[in-house]
Amino acid sequence: MEKLTRNEIDYNLTTLKGWKVEDDGIVKDFVFKDFKEALSIINAIGVVAEELNHHPEFYNVYNKLDIRLSTHDVGGVTLKDFELAHEIEEICNK
Amino acid sequence: MEKLTRNEIDYNLTTLKGWKVEDDGIVKDFVFKDFKEALSIINAIGVVAEELNHHPEFYNVYNKLDIRLSTHDVGGVTLKDFELAHEIEEICNK
Repeated sequence: MEKLTRNEIDYNLTTLKGWKVEDDGIVKDFVFKDFKEALSIINAIGVVAEELNHHPEFYNVYNKLDIRLSTHDVGGVTLKDFELAHEIEEICNK
Repeated sequence: MEKLTRNEIDYNLTTLKGWKVEDDGIVKDFVFKDFKEALSIINAIGVVAEELNHHPEFYNVYNKLDIRLSTHDVGGVTLKDFELAHEIEEICNK
């Protein structure tokens, strides 16, 4: 997987809603109804993350879930992060 | 629940292994075998958190799980945080 340039990242971000660049990753902060919902979303994303063998950074407290995607091997953002971001959007918009 | 003084926090910390004070909370960083194990620990802690109606801050990436406990209502650490910390230890040492 190749590290994307800033232009490539910006282009790919246009295909997503609410995601932005932060340092060497892409991030989005979600707010759910309660802890139970946040946890069930984490679990659903976990299944996809295992399938893709690509794991998000989760920061959760109660109903809040901040997600950060980055490809640590290359120290930046790759298409793998966008693939996972799209899967996350699908899970959260169900 | 009353906010504990620094002395009271330090005293309570002697009953736990690997926890320390950080800002207005107590924290411990865990490392598990893999993502699956980290996630199952998050879920087990989630059950207890719901029972206690007191939720940790989780930061997870792959097999790493950083936990921070704080009682937001009082802006500090209370006995509720220590109760949860003990439950977390029990879960992680199973």
